[in-house]
Amino acid sequence: MLIAVDAVGGDHYPENPVQGAIEATTEHSDLQILLAGPEEMIRQELDGKDFDKSRIHVLHAPEIIGMDESPSSAVKSKQASSITMGLSAHKKGKCQAFVSAGNTGALLAASTFILGKLDGVLRPTIATTYPTVKGTSLLIDAGANLELKPEMYLQFAKMGTIFYREVLGKENPTVGLLNVGEEPEKGKEEHKEAYGLLNDMDNFSGNIEGKDILFGKADVYLTDGFTGNMILKFGESIPDVLKHLVKAVMEQNSVTAEHQKLIFSILSQSLNTFNYEHVGGVPFLGVNGTSLVGHGGSSPKAIKNMIFNAVQCVENRVNEKIVASLNK
Amino acid sequence: MLIAVDAVGGDHYPENPVQGAIEATTEHSDLQILLAGPEEMIRQELDGKDFDKSRIHVLHAPEIIGMDESPSSAVKSKQASSITMGLSAHKKGKCQAFVSAGNTGALLAASTFILGKLDGVLRPTIATTYPTVKGTSLLIDAGANLELKPEMYLQFAKMGTIFYREVLGKENPTVGLLNVGEEPEKGKEEHKEAYGLLNDMDNFSGNIEGKDILFGKADVYLTDGFTGNMILKFGESIPDVLKHLVKAVMEQNSVTAEHQKLIFSILSQSLNTFNYEHVGGVPFLGVNGTSLVGHGGSSPKAIKNMIFNAVQCVENRVNEKIVASLNK
Repeated sequence: MLIAVDAVGGDHYPENPVQGAIEATTEHSDLQILLAGPEEMIRQELDGKDFDKSRIHVLHAPEIIGMDESPSSAVKSKQASSITMGLSAHKKGKCQAFVSAGNTGALLAASTFILGKLDGVLRPTIATTYPTVKGTSLLIDAGANLELKPEMYLQFAKMGTIFYREVLGKENPTVGLLNVGEEPEKGKEEHKEAYGLLNDMDNFSGNIEGKDILFGKADVYLTDGFTGNMILKFGESIPDVLKHLVKAVMEQNSVTAEHQKLIFSILSQSLNTFNYEHVGGVPFLGVNGTSLVGHGGSSPKAIKNMIFNAVQCVENRVNEKIVASLNK
Repeated sequence: MLIAVDAVGGDHYPENPVQGAIEATTEHSDLQILLAGPEEMIRQELDGKDFDKSRIHVLHAPEIIGMDESPSSAVKSKQASSITMGLSAHKKGKCQAFVSAGNTGALLAASTFILGKLDGVLRPTIATTYPTVKGTSLLIDAGANLELKPEMYLQFAKMGTIFYREVLGKENPTVGLLNVGEEPEKGKEEHKEAYGLLNDMDNFSGNIEGKDILFGKADVYLTDGFTGNMILKFGESIPDVLKHLVKAVMEQNSVTAEHQKLIFSILSQSLNTFNYEHVGGVPFLGVNGTSLVGHGGSSPKAIKNMIFNAVQCVENRVNEKIVASLNK
């Protein structure tokens, strides 16, 4: 299997994508990688490293889309970027998937535009893994579609169920609808209608309130992209907020240096649950291909895990199962 | 000044409302309290307590609206409840305000129905105080109106500014719009239009992303009631989640009992920021009267602070200033 990796995506390129790609080929002996980006930059990064030259290839893409560039104009104006060239190679069947830790908006726009939609899909969506005290939930939509129709909740539920089962590895993942109360009649009109549609799914577990999110009350959380984005970014801020508060309290209490060290060690380990950098990539669900995006701060390990997630999407035929589920 | 207090609202009645009322009269020598609820229950609670009998009165209201009752049907069917009788007394001018730690939905419905709207108000709203590392922000709408029109954002901004200034005591509070990005063109159509309207206010500080909420990036946070409810309940869950995670990590690390005690003490003090029980009450802004609601778990101190917040609303003529601001 050949997976294209954006060598110039994320905050730490080309080091982390290149290192993650090497580690992936070391662990997975059948895997080949196509590193997309400026060839000279990639060759320099690979230079002197120990890797199997027969399994790591380069796709020369001289342009780079920055993390803060406007997605639609960047995709239009930079036809020779790693994102557009990597996805185009995937579209032409030259590789089985494309993964990137780059500009999420640009990746969504390019994935939708270049790969197109799967048969029957109303709108592609971004799912994101969300850490909870129970492990990992999948939050859909994480910001792609700020407003949803009731039918889109149902499609996202089906796509999320398949991704969770095939890639995150749980036979019967539950699906919950984020809402302002547990009762079916709670929420806006779209939530009431969505509840009615979702209720026909065997694995729908009802409404999930804000207080239950971090406790992992369902495996797949459904919400509109506006709420999803707020919940996602709010959650990401918790570690820094807690460290700030704990530091202030320790100073007030004149805690000894030794005890401060212990407390920070315990706190850091506890907050590690919220560390998004260790998570692999998440898919654009509903596009006619396999395109995953990782956190901008992705470590080599996160890149490696994202590559493996892409492999699982392909091997377990996630898209084929999505089409079957949506059109039955 | 005479303030009506719901003696049977919240999770700990009649103890906490009665004790909070007594403490309020002890601290504030001009204050009189009207305790609304079943007379015998209130008399029994007052019995043997040290308080100024000339300043604590009872309004016999035999019915009690439970915390989990359906708001609209409870308000309709229980005409002799503490909530409906307390608010009716306020409407008739027998007291200057009504405060309760009871069923928020029932309080909103009854406040809107019995007191009516202030001149020019499109929709009354619930504001809630939101703890941040900088202190306290005010989150509007906290769940009353799940969908907002752009003009409602502007009205809520004006009402929140006045309440923050007059009751929370900051001369020039800033107002921010919760959104998925900082730029004016971010968000749904309603956010773009609201941004345009808010931009004419001197104290509008722009869009606030999810990651900035806990850092207190604005004094007043504007959002629709759906998002507000999610953010509110999500925030309330953080202390329990953190305690759960820290406990597990301490067990894994075989931390000594002495060190566990120290760590929990520091953590509890840090998480105290998120303790909603110490906060006083928050107002239903836009109703033609002064009606405040407190957390169901309100301690006597929280009830006392809610009474004082009501006093400030009246003394500082919050409603008069709201009408002037909306109609100028």
